[in-house]
Amino acid sequence: MDEKMKIGIDMGGMSFKMGLVDSSNQIVARHVIPTELDIPYQEMIKKTARAVRDLTDKVGVALEQCEGIGVGTPGMLDDSGRTIMYSNNFGWENVPFAEEMEKLLPLPLAMANDADAAALGEVCAGAAKGAQSAVLLTLGTGVGGGVIIDGHIFHGSVRGGCEIGHMVIAAGGEPCTCGRAGCMEAYCSASALIRMATAEMKNSPNSALRRLFDEAGGRMNGKIPFDAARIGDEAGRRVVDVYERYLACGIANVINIFRPEKVILGGGIAAQRDNLTVPLTEKVKNICFGNPYGDVADIVVSALGNDAGIIGAANLVSAPDSARSA
Amino acid sequence: MDEKMKIGIDMGGMSFKMGLVDSSNQIVARHVIPTELDIPYQEMIKKTARAVRDLTDKVGVALEQCEGIGVGTPGMLDDSGRTIMYSNNFGWENVPFAEEMEKLLPLPLAMANDADAAALGEVCAGAAKGAQSAVLLTLGTGVGGGVIIDGHIFHGSVRGGCEIGHMVIAAGGEPCTCGRAGCMEAYCSASALIRMATAEMKNSPNSALRRLFDEAGGRMNGKIPFDAARIGDEAGRRVVDVYERYLACGIANVINIFRPEKVILGGGIAAQRDNLTVPLTEKVKNICFGNPYGDVADIVVSALGNDAGIIGAANLVSAPDSARSA
Repeated sequence: MDEKMKIGIDMGGMSFKMGLVDSSNQIVARHVIPTELDIPYQEMIKKTARAVRDLTDKVGVALEQCEGIGVGTPGMLDDSGRTIMYSNNFGWENVPFAEEMEKLLPLPLAMANDADAAALGEVCAGAAKGAQSAVLLTLGTGVGGGVIIDGHIFHGSVRGGCEIGHMVIAAGGEPCTCGRAGCMEAYCSASALIRMATAEMKNSPNSALRRLFDEAGGRMNGKIPFDAARIGDEAGRRVVDVYERYLACGIANVINIFRPEKVILGGGIAAQRDNLTVPLTEKVKNICFGNPYGDVADIVVSALGNDAGIIGAANLVSAPDSARSA
Repeated sequence: MDEKMKIGIDMGGMSFKMGLVDSSNQIVARHVIPTELDIPYQEMIKKTARAVRDLTDKVGVALEQCEGIGVGTPGMLDDSGRTIMYSNNFGWENVPFAEEMEKLLPLPLAMANDADAAALGEVCAGAAKGAQSAVLLTLGTGVGGGVIIDGHIFHGSVRGGCEIGHMVIAAGGEPCTCGRAGCMEAYCSASALIRMATAEMKNSPNSALRRLFDEAGGRMNGKIPFDAARIGDEAGRRVVDVYERYLACGIANVINIFRPEKVILGGGIAAQRDNLTVPLTEKVKNICFGNPYGDVADIVVSALGNDAGIIGAANLVSAPDSARSA
């Protein structure tokens, strides 16, 4: 095998997903290990290093043939980009992840925040392929954000990260997990949509929204209001419309601030695809600053889904100056 | 004279201010001409070119001894950064300013948005000297924003500019000049403060806020509420506190998004200096994401005032890749 491969690792709260990524950004081998949080971090790092060897063994590639390892991690990295300062998902503080891994494996290791890595993946091989600038918004439990400028991750100039989900769009509004009120996360996450749908459902006992909720065993999720709206339910339509208006507000802010070529939506809500992006595009296009002189980004959904993190992480290897993140 | 000088031009709605700037960022000569909007733009450009010659003549410097001309302009530049696509201040559309000036003068010309140029000036020689990253917010009639990343102007990746003042912080709130509701400009500009003070004054007929308003000839301005608060007036205190809370909200957003080393406040309200930055710092520090792990920018006031635009414009000359803006 002449081609140099890279290894990408997407560290999540449930599992560490890793892939061997070729120069066309195809994942040629995969391996997953469960995230174990009840063991010392040193042990989890040893397991990770062993899993990397298992990954390359699967396809008979020698580790030394690989260019390096890229890692996307939740939480905040230190200024060197090599130590996890703090991750509430892992309960880790000041974990010298890169140093420890490099002791165990003969490859250089580069790290970035997981949302940043996913954004880089979408630019390298996904929904923003060919673009030099993009913003990824993951609409899940929270709202994650990854920003690419000039083909590189932008993680803020000093420590703390570029946290678009924690941009307040409704001062004094709904409480956010970060301690502020009115963050984009508190209005545009799947959790926020579920909150809105639950409130509307209680006020609309005869709605399809209510019926679908009951049919789902009395558990609201982010799909139900969209399903209800699709079959013409007014309560569902109201919820989706309010949610989309807040999301359009956040996206217009992102456009006014970064003017990216693409805004990419990921996370559970992005499964709505055109059903989400078409009305959003309509809502966003007229509220961006300088209309009609400014360029308004295309709003698209993630093309790589869960693989964005692995592919983006692998692409940190060839772009060491993109690797520091938080 | 061995030293290479640069020329900086700050184009404003009232006047075009120009300066001859030395390598220590000192303005060694100045010249100002009135902005004439009732003549064809070609005439205004001819007057500008003549004024540049008058500027260098003042100190006996030959134009050919200068490195180039930098220009900060309101409005939006095209992708080349050489044509003013649209400026509502000047009523100009598609004005090939750089090309026309280069026909009249033997020097290369670089352009940027005026707020961006002022931010660059503060980083090169002012309140953020030595920093590689800063965000300037001008609190005047509107809220202008200039962002410096890695020592260069960030003007967004595609056309339209980085318009921080048009980030919505209070969805559905006060109408903004841009057509949206709830923008930072609608809550943090001097105009917004005047609106808040006027409303409070009407509700508080016996307040010092009201008395100072009457003493000012029945015209509210952005200084009166601060003056009232300083002498212990409750109505004044309420206005200033609400204003500062919105401003803190916008600044915390800026920090969560850009993580700059410095946030610089300019415009009329920045005349309050410590009286503004001390309480603001207190309000901002606890609401930024990732506290206490992230770095929170110093909040400072502009050190160069109106000269920031001239000095920043001059510094576009040596940094041609910073020159495109919008």
